Amino acid sequence: MTNKDARTPASVQDGTPLETAPHTSQEAGKSIGWHKAYVEGTRPDLRVPVRQVHLTNGQSVTLYDTSGPYTDPLVDTDVRRGLSPLRENWIIGRGDTEEYAGRPVRPEDDGIKHTAPRGGLRNLDAVFPGRPRQPRRGRDGRAVTQLAYARRGEITPEMEFVALRENVSPEVVREEIAAGRAVLPANVNHPEIEPMIIGKRFLVKVNANIGNSAVTSSIEEEVEKMTWATRWGADTVMDLSTGRNIHTTREWVLRNSPVPIGTVPLYQALEKVDGRAEELTWEIYKDTVIEQAEQGVDYMTVHAGVRLAYVPLTANRKTGIVSRGGSIMAAWCLAHHKESFLYEHFEELCEILAAYDVTYSLGDGLRPGSIADANDEAQFAELRTLGELNRIARRFDVQTMIEGPGHVPMHKIKENIDLQQEICDEAPFYTLGPLTTDVAPAYDHITSGIGAAMIAWWGTAMLCYVTPKEHLGLPNRDDVKTGVITYKIAAHAADLAKGHPGAQEWDDALSDARFEFRWEDQFNLALDPDTAREFHDETLPAEPAKTAHFCSMCGPKFCSMKISQDIRREHGGSRTEIEEGMAQKSKEFAAAGNRVYLPLAD
Amino acid sequence: MTNKDARTPASVQDGTPLETAPHTSQEAGKSIGWHKAYVEGTRPDLRVPVRQVHLTNGQSVTLYDTSGPYTDPLVDTDVRRGLSPLRENWIIGRGDTEEYAGRPVRPEDDGIKHTAPRGGLRNLDAVFPGRPRQPRRGRDGRAVTQLAYARRGEITPEMEFVALRENVSPEVVREEIAAGRAVLPANVNHPEIEPMIIGKRFLVKVNANIGNSAVTSSIEEEVEKMTWATRWGADTVMDLSTGRNIHTTREWVLRNSPVPIGTVPLYQALEKVDGRAEELTWEIYKDTVIEQAEQGVDYMTVHAGVRLAYVPLTANRKTGIVSRGGSIMAAWCLAHHKESFLYEHFEELCEILAAYDVTYSLGDGLRPGSIADANDEAQFAELRTLGELNRIARRFDVQTMIEGPGHVPMHKIKENIDLQQEICDEAPFYTLGPLTTDVAPAYDHITSGIGAAMIAWWGTAMLCYVTPKEHLGLPNRDDVKTGVITYKIAAHAADLAKGHPGAQEWDDALSDARFEFRWEDQFNLALDPDTAREFHDETLPAEPAKTAHFCSMCGPKFCSMKISQDIRREHGGSRTEIEEGMAQKSKEFAAAGNRVYLPLAD
Repeated sequence: MTNKDARTPASVQDGTPLETAPHTSQEAGKSIGWHKAYVEGTRPDLRVPVRQVHLTNGQSVTLYDTSGPYTDPLVDTDVRRGLSPLRENWIIGRGDTEEYAGRPVRPEDDGIKHTAPRGGLRNLDAVFPGRPRQPRRGRDGRAVTQLAYARRGEITPEMEFVALRENVSPEVVREEIAAGRAVLPANVNHPEIEPMIIGKRFLVKVNANIGNSAVTSSIEEEVEKMTWATRWGADTVMDLSTGRNIHTTREWVLRNSPVPIGTVPLYQALEKVDGRAEELTWEIYKDTVIEQAEQGVDYMTVHAGVRLAYVPLTANRKTGIVSRGGSIMAAWCLAHHKESFLYEHFEELCEILAAYDVTYSLGDGLRPGSIADANDEAQFAELRTLGELNRIARRFDVQTMIEGPGHVPMHKIKENIDLQQEICDEAPFYTLGPLTTDVAPAYDHITSGIGAAMIAWWGTAMLCYVTPKEHLGLPNRDDVKTGVITYKIAAHAADLAKGHPGAQEWDDALSDARFEFRWEDQFNLALDPDTAREFHDETLPAEPAKTAHFCSMCGPKFCSMKISQDIRREHGGSRTEIEEGMAQKSKEFAAAGNRVYLPLAD
Repeated sequence: MTNKDARTPASVQDGTPLETAPHTSQEAGKSIGWHKAYVEGTRPDLRVPVRQVHLTNGQSVTLYDTSGPYTDPLVDTDVRRGLSPLRENWIIGRGDTEEYAGRPVRPEDDGIKHTAPRGGLRNLDAVFPGRPRQPRRGRDGRAVTQLAYARRGEITPEMEFVALRENVSPEVVREEIAAGRAVLPANVNHPEIEPMIIGKRFLVKVNANIGNSAVTSSIEEEVEKMTWATRWGADTVMDLSTGRNIHTTREWVLRNSPVPIGTVPLYQALEKVDGRAEELTWEIYKDTVIEQAEQGVDYMTVHAGVRLAYVPLTANRKTGIVSRGGSIMAAWCLAHHKESFLYEHFEELCEILAAYDVTYSLGDGLRPGSIADANDEAQFAELRTLGELNRIARRFDVQTMIEGPGHVPMHKIKENIDLQQEICDEAPFYTLGPLTTDVAPAYDHITSGIGAAMIAWWGTAMLCYVTPKEHLGLPNRDDVKTGVITYKIAAHAADLAKGHPGAQEWDDALSDARFEFRWEDQFNLALDPDTAREFHDETLPAEPAKTAHFCSMCGPKFCSMKISQDIRREHGGSRTEIEEGMAQKSKEFAAAGNRVYLPLAD
């Protein structure tokens, strides 16, 4: 993998980066105009990564960086060893956790049956070749969550880290977490992550889903997809694996991930009962949650809002229940004619998550799967239950975000975020799109990117990406990139609309480069420099074209920006002169009752 | 070119298509599940094309069709002969136009210099090989515009045609045109078009730009791009050619186009003075407008709002003037220190356009070219002038629409449409995007698709597409398709949000097919069936997969929709039974105070 691909949304830092590692592309061998740098906090082991883009006019622009150590040429990464545990000392230093033997890894964790022939059992020591480690949890089962610390008024290194990243004060971070308006997903068993925050007062975040399935793909592919997604700007990654080797795939992903990892434990639990929903039990689910918490999963989607009473509300829907977790729980509820075991055992689940600082992502199992089903009774009945569960989770100091739709036409989008914020006490909203029409399979990154930008502007904290393969197939490497880029566009467009401090500086820097024909700067500042450069070269390949004061759209005679610049040159020279000169003439012109006036250049 | 590509947005017809031509793909040789059909009006020569998609469940869905005769296997098209002039009898029948010798075609019309060597002069008879024709204009220079007829209370065949197309009454069409809230671009010299309407009460329309440039591309390519764009759903096409052979390229495009063609006459006028803006004169411009009106251009972008007084307002902008036409006029104004000749001669221009029924597209020459410049003084000063010009045009019975931006962050978009509607007496707004961020060159179809969907929801009547090559290069065939598809998504999402009658029936049909695993129906109903099918086959190539009750995302065990269907099957069988059964149980459940209830299947 090459480093030159990475780009992430803008967050201009106050602190001056203390250290820059000269960057060279491992692919092309030529520098591509940016350096990996770090902003140091109040302690030497608190170093916030940023990407510094160096412009040909001597200025530089600092961008938010999710790509992890992989883009630092001074760091020697090895997927078989995993990333270094940068948070380990912070976690140990708090002295409120303990190591313990942990739950033994069983063949069925990887979907291998007890009845499997001897040869069918893999050597479980090989789950991950990296350094052996024992899981960690809150001593005496106490809550070791960022929420608990925030409510106690403590500013953790994690909070300081995200404060530097978001260019706000650590106190603002603490307040937002304490109020439940933001979450900082950071399992004590995932010390490798670079902390990030999800909340409406901060930059809009993007999640990328990966995961092998019963049908296709491998462990290596998933690890590669994870690093690829973060390279393009994914802030978190969900591992939705459903096939074999779920446990092992997750271990590899976690040990190599610089971003928080989310999962849906229900998927693995269902594998353990051979996909027979009715055979699921609270014990199997609980065991799976502990298994994943010990591995270091940072947030878990829990469909505890799918209650028995709501299933009938989906009967006259056009597309029924389209959430996998939701349909599994609905099937279980109906098969047993019992209330959801997730709903019934929710408090016990809170105690478990609090001991590892696993963040809840309360799933919207009844989200609409079509325009026709948007904002219906089933969807909002579940949302009200999620509000109730959010308050319970808060009692246990468990960080919580709420998942949202889905398929929603534009005029029904705002009601979703407004209701969620009201019902869920402003807990972070985490939406899938929404898709604004059903008619464009193969383009649902776009149908949903439209809804995503709008709902993020109105307050959604994190957007779950949708790839071009949605509804059709499993995303490949290109689909993951397209999905992430599309959602970084939606997220940044929302940051601009929300007036996030510093967000527009990125646009301004690129537009300056565009107006001044600094093509290389325009490419290097682009969300996807490679494709921008490639598209330009398709029409004007020659190197001189990169300094030409026109481009292939209009050619030299018609370039509006060139004419625009000529106007300035011919009528006053410097930008300031022309401004004053023109402004002055403009006044005279108006005063003269809009009659023709004398030359500006006089 | 194959027919199987065509897809356009939904508009369900009242009338039953009278005639269907069995369709077979010229490429794959297999039927792809739709037929070209026609809805006949009150006269035999008034036949509105529609696309009927035939579903495997026996139902059919009727979609709006912009693809012209090219997708009718019963019509033998030949680009060297051009399309048959279906409006000719309607135009002649009105008896208010006359044929005349017309302006002789000169070498400089194609950018060939008087000074060019004898060999340099092409045989001008070969401008277009099709049937010779004389231009037509209003007798005694009278206004022969759809606006003039509408105000007189006349419902023309063109109005009836669009009424059938939009599934509204002809009277609604007449009223909207008479009020200036809609335009029906239809030059009397472009009888080949299938009439369409642009107005906020109707389906949102999409324009695709084509055109060769000084740098690259040929006549054949442009004709091909036009038919390709309309095949994917472009409602109008603008020929923005700037290089040589402008006149000839335009002739070929017009004679073969089933949709209205727009141009920016200023580009060709500038070619006639070798690109020296200061050498432009009203006479040269006027001659060019007449040249193009005689060829049949249906609407023309006129940058008459760029007044001398406004140029200084752009001086302290981040990206100055980014409209080509705008910068050309600004350069002219400053060079001569005179008011714009377009503004000064606007009434004379109205008389010319009225005689051919050329529709004004009043250009926004001062539109913002960056987020920083959005909604600034220069932009809105010009808009106020466009409002003034719109009222003048109306006095001359010239149909008029207003062009809009550009680069605008989401929170500043609504002000654009609201102000335009107020200042321009609800004249149709025709916007370029807007782009909601500057940071994603190579993805500006997406940055702008977001803004386009929003502004169309709020009342914009037509969207000018943006391709992935925007800011970088000239769009190729794939870019044109991507741009059109992206904008059809934005337009349809807006139709849904506006509650356009019938719009959701398309989404519902596709979602039904999706929920019932009718894969072929899902593909055939998709905006881009080819890509949808291709993406599906990438993961599950086998033919059986197309009838499988699961897909590659989750595999058989996890398919939520399958589980959803199983729930229905197991608990009541038919959809109706389950609805009643579940609803009943739901009541009991609520009544019983949310305690577990008895089996639904009892």
